Amino acid sequence: MAGVTGARTFDAFTGRYAQRTAGMTASEIRALFAVASRPEVVSLAGGMPYTTALPLDAVGQLMSDLIARTGPSALQYGSGQGDPALREQICQVMALEGVVGSPDDVTVTVGSQQALDLITRIFIDPGDVILAEAPSYVGALGTFAAYQADVVHVPMDADGLVPEALRQAIADVKAAGRTAKFLYTIPNFHNPAGTSLSDARRDEVLQICIQAGLLVVEDNPYGLLGFEGPPTPAIHGRGGSSEDNVIYLGSFSKTFAPGLRVGWVLAPHAVREKLVLASEAAVLCPPALNQMVVTEYLTTTDWMGQVAVFQKLYQERRDAMLNALTSMMPSGTTWTHPTGGFYVWTTLPEGLDAKVMQPRAITARVAYVPGIGFYADGQGQRELRLSYCFPEPARIEEGVRRLAGVVEAELELLATFGPSFSERVIGATTPPPSLA
Amino acid sequence: MAGVTGARTFDAFTGRYAQRTAGMTASEIRALFAVASRPEVVSLAGGMPYTTALPLDAVGQLMSDLIARTGPSALQYGSGQGDPALREQICQVMALEGVVGSPDDVTVTVGSQQALDLITRIFIDPGDVILAEAPSYVGALGTFAAYQADVVHVPMDADGLVPEALRQAIADVKAAGRTAKFLYTIPNFHNPAGTSLSDARRDEVLQICIQAGLLVVEDNPYGLLGFEGPPTPAIHGRGGSSEDNVIYLGSFSKTFAPGLRVGWVLAPHAVREKLVLASEAAVLCPPALNQMVVTEYLTTTDWMGQVAVFQKLYQERRDAMLNALTSMMPSGTTWTHPTGGFYVWTTLPEGLDAKVMQPRAITARVAYVPGIGFYADGQGQRELRLSYCFPEPARIEEGVRRLAGVVEAELELLATFGPSFSERVIGATTPPPSLA
Repeated sequence: MAGVTGARTFDAFTGRYAQRTAGMTASEIRALFAVASRPEVVSLAGGMPYTTALPLDAVGQLMSDLIARTGPSALQYGSGQGDPALREQICQVMALEGVVGSPDDVTVTVGSQQALDLITRIFIDPGDVILAEAPSYVGALGTFAAYQADVVHVPMDADGLVPEALRQAIADVKAAGRTAKFLYTIPNFHNPAGTSLSDARRDEVLQICIQAGLLVVEDNPYGLLGFEGPPTPAIHGRGGSSEDNVIYLGSFSKTFAPGLRVGWVLAPHAVREKLVLASEAAVLCPPALNQMVVTEYLTTTDWMGQVAVFQKLYQERRDAMLNALTSMMPSGTTWTHPTGGFYVWTTLPEGLDAKVMQPRAITARVAYVPGIGFYADGQGQRELRLSYCFPEPARIEEGVRRLAGVVEAELELLATFGPSFSERVIGATTPPPSLA
Repeated sequence: MAGVTGARTFDAFTGRYAQRTAGMTASEIRALFAVASRPEVVSLAGGMPYTTALPLDAVGQLMSDLIARTGPSALQYGSGQGDPALREQICQVMALEGVVGSPDDVTVTVGSQQALDLITRIFIDPGDVILAEAPSYVGALGTFAAYQADVVHVPMDADGLVPEALRQAIADVKAAGRTAKFLYTIPNFHNPAGTSLSDARRDEVLQICIQAGLLVVEDNPYGLLGFEGPPTPAIHGRGGSSEDNVIYLGSFSKTFAPGLRVGWVLAPHAVREKLVLASEAAVLCPPALNQMVVTEYLTTTDWMGQVAVFQKLYQERRDAMLNALTSMMPSGTTWTHPTGGFYVWTTLPEGLDAKVMQPRAITARVAYVPGIGFYADGQGQRELRLSYCFPEPARIEEGVRRLAGVVEAELELLATFGPSFSERVIGATTPPPSLA
């Protein structure tokens, strides 16, 4: 608590920081998060993969084998672009979603968060515009803010990003005399919205962007975690030479393990060269050990079988959450119906505010992430993100039961005292990584 | 070779990049490096620790034990600030060099390169001035350039940074109507200079900076790798409340393994808060696995004994290099006498140019890093960095023999044809990570 009391709250460096630090703001939910982590609280907040389901014996064994066989290299500096063997494997993984890429155009990153950072670093000057879905990934919004970008949100519906709204947003930005640098989109099992961009719209969205001279940054960490049949082919590579208009981001955080921090970018050659230079300035090189562990995991274990285990496990939890929402939530509450991934996006009845309600939910021993953090412009007060990836089904049901009780109590307060019963809070926030 | 021929060399994105990409330049020695990596070449270029000397059995075993005991956490997302257990260990490691810090003020980073990136990110606006030794660490110069900082070099002598020159540089910057944001210094076994800042000068340098209102960024990856007695106490913590004027950087890359990419920053509380936010935007969190491997290594192995093994090994190689230089190099060549670390900084006889000479050295099957990469302003043509950390002593001797032959041949050419015999090249470059 040294930081919040007494003399140490005085910042001797005020006035000496870079201007970009103004965009780096601490989350208002940080303090609550410590409480939300208590075992008696059902956390529907964090987007943590269920790593307990991993084949831990095999992972431990392959690590010691790796060190025995090639320890001096695994523990040494590596290439800034990433290990060539892993980059070849990555191309095979991407092919499962219809992406054709060369290992030479892949840059390995410290999780796909670093990919977002590098892309923003090389494309964004302060005041540049980025288009992003409404809502969008909170970690991307944090990075965009850190580079002083202005985010313009584009509405979604049950089929993902709305093409007509994208056209309108591009026109509005242009009419304002500004140019958007790229569209940031999560087409599969969106974080936080839980929806996916339909196959037909993928072509349409890409064509709109090509015609507008707009890059597409396609962020796809969840694509292999669908519950209903094979993956929808990626945006990347649709339509001739259009692959040069798309920068594709992938990650092993959800198909294998986030604790390794191994993600990647597939980018047109000229962009890739700049990404590698930027990454060398940022971290010198991604950890050699982690990359070799991933390669070893992909080549020596039935990793696709493990992905199927995850699919089944997350599908059961998705079902538990949707069933509980249907049977318990007060009318006026709505939610999305994800066919993969980790998240259900929920909209509270009119007059309620998810941020204001949050302390009461924590008191009732259930945690979620308020919606406003997923917008750069203060939208989302009635919205919240529920995650079903980590708790077991019975806990999910119990969490939704508690949440439904809180919403009912809020509605009663609202009916009794009117909409002024609680302070309204707006503003984008960045939660800690465990919530992102 | 797709990237260097035909249509793909055309960059469709020209004009769309951020202005800062102008400061991200590829190294001119990159192409040569592929040649320099051939087994028949003695590389005195790379700063790679001799990871072959690590207790590989113990490291492999502790990894599989770790996964068996706590796999789901080791493979999970962690905190943006870094694992609390590791931050406590880091404070004990820093104490060995006289640094007193609280785990709460430590931020774990993806190698200390990321620490440099984060510090530059939170303090530097384009055009801000950073003071740095002449020469300075090439990886830091690359990061500073990526944030569009202007580096002003401060001369060194055999006792490190020259205090009077520091006073002068501060005065010159002020007279130009500008303000330096921080002094970047490597006080121990400097990369690339091989020198150390004397004990008395540490106090003086700190006092100069305090009086000038200038932060000190103390980068200390090599401090525990001295060959002559205990470490000189760090700059951090000298003189009362002065610890709030120093940001201290450490790393496990040289005492343990660079392939883990685990470094850290100890910073005043207000700065630490901004560092964590910046790191979350950059990578979400450092890899949990790697941090737990380091903690396990520190607590279950005789890591100090291993550091002693490294000290002895590098001392033998340092001796081999200095002896070879003394017995073989043509007169007019001078070099520094490191008492720890990895590097000998060499100055060629007047009229020679280390960059121009480099292809001839590679042809003679010896590699080094030309000096100009270690300056932001084109200095260092006669200078070069020799590393003794990786090759075995007999190879070092052979490498210096080859180098001496190349220098002699250059001197003969110079005597015969005069100083115009070869093109002179200037300009700062960024080498690949394996050379940094």
